[in-house]
Amino acid sequence: MISEKDYQLLKQHGCKMYLEEENPKLRKKHWLPLLLKEKQQNNITPTLEEAVKKSGLKDGMTISFHHHFRAGDFVVNMVLDVLEKMGFKNLTLAASSLTTCHAPVLNHIRSGLVTKIHTSGMRGELADAISMGVMDQPVTFWSHGARATAIEENRLHIDVAFLGAPSCDPYGNANGYTREGEGKSICGSMGYARIDAQYADHVIVITDNLVPYPNVPFAISQRFVDQVVVVDSIGDPEKIMSGATRFTKKPGDLLIAEKTAEVIVNSGYFYDGFSLQTGSGGASLAVTRFLSDYMREKNIHASFAIGGITGVMTKLHEEGLIKKILDVQSFDLEAANSLKNNHLHQQIDADYYADPFKVGTAVNLLDVVILSALEVDVDFNVNVLTGSDGVIRGAIGGHPDTAAGASLAIVVCPLFRGRIPSVLKHVNTIVTPGSTVDVVVTDQGIAVNPSRTDLIEALEKAHIDIVDIHELQKKAESVTGVPEPIKYGDRIVGIVTYRDGSVIDVIKNVESVTKEEETV
Amino acid sequence: MISEKDYQLLKQHGCKMYLEEENPKLRKKHWLPLLLKEKQQNNITPTLEEAVKKSGLKDGMTISFHHHFRAGDFVVNMVLDVLEKMGFKNLTLAASSLTTCHAPVLNHIRSGLVTKIHTSGMRGELADAISMGVMDQPVTFWSHGARATAIEENRLHIDVAFLGAPSCDPYGNANGYTREGEGKSICGSMGYARIDAQYADHVIVITDNLVPYPNVPFAISQRFVDQVVVVDSIGDPEKIMSGATRFTKKPGDLLIAEKTAEVIVNSGYFYDGFSLQTGSGGASLAVTRFLSDYMREKNIHASFAIGGITGVMTKLHEEGLIKKILDVQSFDLEAANSLKNNHLHQQIDADYYADPFKVGTAVNLLDVVILSALEVDVDFNVNVLTGSDGVIRGAIGGHPDTAAGASLAIVVCPLFRGRIPSVLKHVNTIVTPGSTVDVVVTDQGIAVNPSRTDLIEALEKAHIDIVDIHELQKKAESVTGVPEPIKYGDRIVGIVTYRDGSVIDVIKNVESVTKEEETV
Repeated sequence: MISEKDYQLLKQHGCKMYLEEENPKLRKKHWLPLLLKEKQQNNITPTLEEAVKKSGLKDGMTISFHHHFRAGDFVVNMVLDVLEKMGFKNLTLAASSLTTCHAPVLNHIRSGLVTKIHTSGMRGELADAISMGVMDQPVTFWSHGARATAIEENRLHIDVAFLGAPSCDPYGNANGYTREGEGKSICGSMGYARIDAQYADHVIVITDNLVPYPNVPFAISQRFVDQVVVVDSIGDPEKIMSGATRFTKKPGDLLIAEKTAEVIVNSGYFYDGFSLQTGSGGASLAVTRFLSDYMREKNIHASFAIGGITGVMTKLHEEGLIKKILDVQSFDLEAANSLKNNHLHQQIDADYYADPFKVGTAVNLLDVVILSALEVDVDFNVNVLTGSDGVIRGAIGGHPDTAAGASLAIVVCPLFRGRIPSVLKHVNTIVTPGSTVDVVVTDQGIAVNPSRTDLIEALEKAHIDIVDIHELQKKAESVTGVPEPIKYGDRIVGIVTYRDGSVIDVIKNVESVTKEEETV
Repeated sequence: MISEKDYQLLKQHGCKMYLEEENPKLRKKHWLPLLLKEKQQNNITPTLEEAVKKSGLKDGMTISFHHHFRAGDFVVNMVLDVLEKMGFKNLTLAASSLTTCHAPVLNHIRSGLVTKIHTSGMRGELADAISMGVMDQPVTFWSHGARATAIEENRLHIDVAFLGAPSCDPYGNANGYTREGEGKSICGSMGYARIDAQYADHVIVITDNLVPYPNVPFAISQRFVDQVVVVDSIGDPEKIMSGATRFTKKPGDLLIAEKTAEVIVNSGYFYDGFSLQTGSGGASLAVTRFLSDYMREKNIHASFAIGGITGVMTKLHEEGLIKKILDVQSFDLEAANSLKNNHLHQQIDADYYADPFKVGTAVNLLDVVILSALEVDVDFNVNVLTGSDGVIRGAIGGHPDTAAGASLAIVVCPLFRGRIPSVLKHVNTIVTPGSTVDVVVTDQGIAVNPSRTDLIEALEKAHIDIVDIHELQKKAESVTGVPEPIKYGDRIVGIVTYRDGSVIDVIKNVESVTKEEETV
């Protein structure tokens, strides 16, 4: 027991925070089991509307979402509908990315509910309208690493995060899968969402699969979750697990993939213990297939693979050719199931994956990355965000993060798509600076960044034909003709940030949108 | 490319942080691969001394340690020796706990290196000297939950954390085991250390087993680690995995354990899906053995077990009797290996385990906890910190956290130990308030907190004899005699905090230390 004299002694020791007069509430508490929560209490809030009320969301605040459900996502539209009905205005929508299924966001822009957007990319109707200037404020585009770091450093502050989860217990332990039976949907890793959960002021998990406590393993700990809302469905399972990751059968893509594998094998970065990532896009994903033949033949094992993980990768992992997998995003069902079942397939968060300022960031430890491109120019700058008509139809993703981090950053693309050249004098939008791109592999030739004399030497030694990138550009132009300059307006509709949050380019408004082009 | 006009437009949009004039460094960066780390760079610092210099540690700051190596820890002494040699003064030592192996801390107190201590407990020579008043400032004792919360809320600020890890890669991904071969030592979970890693200003991992990147799974992410130091040995493997968790063969302990199992089975909290924790101490750990017979017989499965995990628990997990394990601390090698191998054995941090302020905290979801005691009094208050001579010889641990959180908190102890009564009129030091303790099981009778009329009814229905706790106290006194009052001085040597950080009791100095008593 603490006597009056003890208090005086405590005071002499400077134990300010403990003293009754300093904080009368604190001292009394411990004699009562006030901290003992009633057993029936949990974090479930019956409706989304009620959860929003409890969250303290106000006009002008920032709400966040993840894009692990890709084109199958129901959460963004569901939440915005509720907020619209509740009469909110002037919110900032900070999604890790947006896709074709988010066309309804347009209605909420027009109503004044959404006045600012942060995302990695966008496609379809919403992107078209934004390109044409529907918003007063430009959209800010982030790479995955830049977004994570901006959130961590509070340059992008999230007031309320709405995070869909394919499994969650009543206290908020949430994951992209469950080791107990099957949920309604599965998305594997929740690597982007984990950052929002850790740093948002208020976190609401939205699930269609409430599982018993404790939901282990969890991507998001109950520590960071304020409320859980159970709904009928958070996404379309089929569309969650498709999209950018379809396996190519196009001869052009396969040719590029085969050549890329040859480049890797002869680059000096193909050694027992190397590491790799393949970006989304047909040719990029197909590289792994060709590369694995070399790996078997030469008895070479990868120490780890990172990034958006596909079944192609996890099969190699299960075969023993890739020792460990670091998974910030699972692109297909095989990948999600591997995460669920395999011992050395590890879920990582976006900061672990691509924070530009940390030595141990996974992308910084990459030997090889294979990346797609809408456009690449003679300075090796890459555009994955806007089409040849200047319209937004892509996403930055981890492109600049991995290009800068990897020792060998290979960009793959056909020399032209239909009448549209992929290799240009100047890309319309710079997403990844050429100084971080080492090789460009097209179906009509391979170009190496002149600064990489070591690579040029290695590939020449292996009798791999290298052409000057200007030649590729001219060759493309000779087929497609000189592209008409895009008719931009003078308003900025998009701000393209680089890894550190600086502006690397801006996107201007266009007057009209041409027919939908192929995206990567 | 961004023209001057674009800049003006960006300005109009309020994009302050992006503009060159606002932050000239930011804009230039992206044209250079400045963010691309040199491949040879990692977080390894060759010596501890160099690491300390890099950390920016200054006199008067707070350094932290974890106690997952228990009596086998080399890290605290190793680091303090280096700091002593470097001439530091007036540091606050904030360990998650201290044990018998930390006697050398005494030298550093005498030298003026360590002037304040935060810990969960202490034993042996260091504890004796502190009880006798060797320090000017009282030691602050925290429960595991209180410490985690205090660190999270910055009431206990850590400047530099020195965290021993049985495996770590060059970038700081650290764990208490490794899935690649065997390290020199293994400690299983690093649940306490994870909080220090997340919230300390600077984090140094000290390892004797450097493994290739990426060390997956990891308890501590490279995200939170600033430096890695490799040393010959971080602990004595045998002592890391021993201590408070020896398995009892004492008939008295076994009798208590058997009775406790009976109480649980008839309490109303023994249902298919119940949850449990057993504290350290012979009788407490033995309960599980008896309880498991009932579980098999009645086909009852636990949904989860938490806390300091032992092989007794993990065997039941592997048998299917305990579905999931939440592991903040692994007490023995079987537990550590289960964490390494079992799919639903989850490492959790101290905040997840015992944060008093969160609904989903694991202790708050406990049905049954079995806890030891040095002393319990007629108001059901419990002392696990000081002996009958007033000398510090124990640790708060998760005692008050689990007692408050669990629906059924059972304290087990013999009625007396030698000539020392365990059931008293007043405990010498209150660690766990009686209002959170439900049942006391001794070898000579079972007492139920009068406020738990529901429990009394349930146990009486099952024909379990219940005695008034005053009777137990008198019975003890009749054998041991009335204990001599402890001769305390008038200085405060220890501050005992409760879950919320309030002071629940103080420990005064003693003039002399009697022979070492049994501890729990």
